Amino acid sequence: MPIPPNTIGVDLGGTWLRVARVTVEQGRVAEMERAATDVVGGPEGVLAQMQGMIDRLRDGGTLGLGVCIPGTFDVESGVVLGLAALPGWTGFPLAARLSDHTMLSCRLENDAKAAAIGEWEAGAAIGFQNFVYVTVSTGIGACAVVDGRLLRGVGGLAGEIGHTQVVETSERCACGRHGCWQVLAAGPALARRAEAAARSSPSSLLATLGLAARLSGVEVERAARAGDAVALSVVREHASMLGIGFVNLQHVYAPELIVVGGGVSNLLDLMRPHLGAVLQDQLLPGFKPAEIRASAFGDIAGLVGAAAVARNFAMSVARVTH
Amino acid sequence: MPIPPNTIGVDLGGTWLRVARVTVEQGRVAEMERAATDVVGGPEGVLAQMQGMIDRLRDGGTLGLGVCIPGTFDVESGVVLGLAALPGWTGFPLAARLSDHTMLSCRLENDAKAAAIGEWEAGAAIGFQNFVYVTVSTGIGACAVVDGRLLRGVGGLAGEIGHTQVVETSERCACGRHGCWQVLAAGPALARRAEAAARSSPSSLLATLGLAARLSGVEVERAARAGDAVALSVVREHASMLGIGFVNLQHVYAPELIVVGGGVSNLLDLMRPHLGAVLQDQLLPGFKPAEIRASAFGDIAGLVGAAAVARNFAMSVARVTH
Repeated sequence: MPIPPNTIGVDLGGTWLRVARVTVEQGRVAEMERAATDVVGGPEGVLAQMQGMIDRLRDGGTLGLGVCIPGTFDVESGVVLGLAALPGWTGFPLAARLSDHTMLSCRLENDAKAAAIGEWEAGAAIGFQNFVYVTVSTGIGACAVVDGRLLRGVGGLAGEIGHTQVVETSERCACGRHGCWQVLAAGPALARRAEAAARSSPSSLLATLGLAARLSGVEVERAARAGDAVALSVVREHASMLGIGFVNLQHVYAPELIVVGGGVSNLLDLMRPHLGAVLQDQLLPGFKPAEIRASAFGDIAGLVGAAAVARNFAMSVARVTH
Repeated sequence: MPIPPNTIGVDLGGTWLRVARVTVEQGRVAEMERAATDVVGGPEGVLAQMQGMIDRLRDGGTLGLGVCIPGTFDVESGVVLGLAALPGWTGFPLAARLSDHTMLSCRLENDAKAAAIGEWEAGAAIGFQNFVYVTVSTGIGACAVVDGRLLRGVGGLAGEIGHTQVVETSERCACGRHGCWQVLAAGPALARRAEAAARSSPSSLLATLGLAARLSGVEVERAARAGDAVALSVVREHASMLGIGFVNLQHVYAPELIVVGGGVSNLLDLMRPHLGAVLQDQLLPGFKPAEIRASAFGDIAGLVGAAAVARNFAMSVARVTH
């Protein structure tokens, strides 16, 4: 049996490093490895991890590598410009080093943009010309596809909607400012909201689940699905905060679909009626509420997208040379 | 002497109707007419106005018509879908009716997008691949060019950044909601800010200028340029409100240039230091403050852009048929 053509996707995260072999034909993950990112080892330590995982997963059908990173890079040279949760990477020639080791082409991509590409090519956004991918976890990242094109902007920085100001005062954001959407609507805000609700309703199921530990989206989901009124009101309140940003992103990008990834998306089915009501109520005349779908790939959307970037590059090179 | 090739630009506004003959070569306005829009006459009344003005301005070199409108339309059919300040236009086949009368091709464009096209092709944004045109007058309209493409989105509605929520509470916006950027930073907000400042400093130059009438940007500018401290503090405060939205639009579109049109742009040179400070202070790491320029065409940017749309269409047809 011939070896099916494939590409290797790499997802470099602040917590996990994931590598997968993805088939060119169906965009299917054939095999995957995961390791805790060697943050302390810096670029050289992580590079050694990547190389080991790539060497195990690649085969005779591998056409190239795609790596998604939580930050910015120079598109042509594949040099890292800056990563959010990983110090010491600025100026590291990641694409060249991986390419030298593997003798394969290597392309970098930003993690939110790679996830959008993954969902666009093989997931929840197949066939859409106007959609926004939003990942809601520790922070909020986004990538917009408008008129059939993925927006990059100067330095590839377009899509930082998590740090748009939506209220005047709030707790301080990780970026140091106040009023950012992600302070109201990312995972930590859900946890704060749940803890406050549990404190004021100590006999609720939600409060019971949280006695031993801090509350998170997991407990909110469990209590809400069991019908706990307190948890359901936390979900409703969180949906209205998420809705503020969804209204804003509809007004700026005019998508017809919003794909939601990240941990908070596990609550999406419970939040959807409230989100829909906020959109219906708050959108300008002429706008229709965007369809809201959960990510098809969850936390491997970036990995699948990185492999797709590698595949598209390999094919564009093939078109030029043949 | 041969007649230079030209197109006719039409700018349909809620107050003024403007028509101009614009040369294809330099994108220069050769001749222009202006009339108060016959709002009461509805589409048929305004159409008659347009036809008269076009008939006087066109000549043997006229290749086509472009019309910019304050609202939305169907791109292929040229039917109006909805206009902001003009009732009764929904469903009116404006492009077809003008084309039937003139025997020229006619293309519609949204007014903010036409202004961006005018600035991009012949004004303040020549050569830029990433910029946002923002018009600040009664409301705030915008159009983003990202990665060398003008963003439209579903229904051509992308760019409604004036109606993104930036604060939790505010006076009510024209759209009926609270917290929209334009409530804080458009012309009426400047007037309210000036009137409040004049009331609390009745001996200021600004207060003196406003005794006989309501204050507007004109009096703020006059007093500020004369060095009135009260007027200068109004300018500073208004700049910080404008800055909130500029930071947001940098985060979502990642432009390197912001072109400001509309009446409030007359204060731009006075506001620029404060705007620059807000951007410097509030942008995420990696972002550089966008250059901020005043519109090169002022209130005829849309007219010039509409003529450019007509020219581009005439040339694309010429390329296909020859």
